[in-house]
Amino acid sequence: MFREELIFETHGEGDIIDLSPAVRDVVARSGVWDGQVSVFVKGSTAAITTIEFEPGVLADLRRALDVIAPKDAVYEHDRAWGDGNGRSHVRAALLGPSVTIPVQEGTLFSGTWQQVVLIELDIRSGRTRFVLCTVV
Amino acid sequence: MFREELIFETHGEGDIIDLSPAVRDVVARSGVWDGQVSVFVKGSTAAITTIEFEPGVLADLRRALDVIAPKDAVYEHDRAWGDGNGRSHVRAALLGPSVTIPVQEGTLFSGTWQQVVLIELDIRSGRTRFVLCTVV
Amino acid sequence: MFREELIFETHGEGDIIDLSPAVRDVVARSGVWDGQVSVFVKGSTAAITTIEFEPGVLADLRRALDVIAPKDAVYEHDRAWGDGNGRSHVRAALLGPSVTIPVQEGTLFSGTWQQVVLIELDIRSGRTRFVLCTVV
Repeated sequence: MFREELIFETHGEGDIIDLSPAVRDVVARSGVWDGQVSVFVKGSTAAITTIEFEPGVLADLRRALDVIAPKDAVYEHDRAWGDGNGRSHVRAALLGPSVTIPVQEGTLFSGTWQQVVLIELDIRSGRTRFVLCTVV
Repeated sequence: MFREELIFETHGEGDIIDLSPAVRDVVARSGVWDGQVSVFVKGSTAAITTIEFEPGVLADLRRALDVIAPKDAVYEHDRAWGDGNGRSHVRAALLGPSVTIPVQEGTLFSGTWQQVVLIELDIRSGRTRFVLCTVV
Repeated sequence: MFREELIFETHGEGDIIDLSPAVRDVVARSGVWDGQVSVFVKGSTAAITTIEFEPGVLADLRRALDVIAPKDAVYEHDRAWGDGNGRSHVRAALLGPSVTIPVQEGTLFSGTWQQVVLIELDIRSGRTRFVLCTVV
């Protein structure tokens, strides 16, 4: 098992970072030829998934998230705590905190247009996000 | 590999159980210092995810699930089988049955406000749910 | 670790294939008695989840996906590229590309009504989908 933590600064709600180059580097450093890599983000207002990293698709995903948990709805979390990020929690729980990708011949077995991404869902800019990559 | 089955009684649709203490205990008993733990629920009308275990957030999640698969919609599953839990199946498929969390220094690498939860989506109260924890 | 690639031809948007028999065969061939199997689909317009493989439930899932990312919405991806599959990308990112299922006593630890499925979300018929099964 090989493990590395990646640290990212995010720039507010809806910021999406392409993790693929960094994850591919971790896999290369691990020396693992055939196996799997799990990518997990710490925290309850961010998420990990795979998507084509294309500005149009990313905008479309943001809009879909706003359908599921709209900006202008009333959130019990916000009423109780005044955090204003009730929707962030809901979206993160639906997307999930991690993804597991096969490693084949030393690289990611994922489509050409299928990138691993970190999605910042919280409303505050300048958050530090800790992403743990585990190669097995 | 270390494996343990956890058994829970749930109290109807929308019941959400914080699995973190039990999962942390399994990890401790496994003796694994660095690795991963997968948490999987058997059955097609329950789900596993991570979320802040705070009553407001949980209420907000329930409402979002009702947007995706509303209580008052007509479900083909219900028309065919009269089960009344068509929405439960849809919600479970979207949330997913499992989550994989890194184990670091003998404990879960997850945020302070990021709990592993079992979400009961079925409409019948008093269901027994089988959750399998696999520590690698 | 044992790995096998499964190849499927899909028949357009909303086609859902029950992977359980094939995944169970891979597990049997692996000889693994206790472990886990990860099922991952290559590409950004398909998804893997678990669901009861019943026509009514599958129709209900398709309708829920149309709520999250409707057919008749305007997609930035389509405006930029004219692909017409903007909704496919959004739905795939929300569902996710993989699922990990425990293997117990040589078979899948999943419910009787809980099948592993490949969901074709792209709009073009006759796509070839590559699914990688990794048994550990």
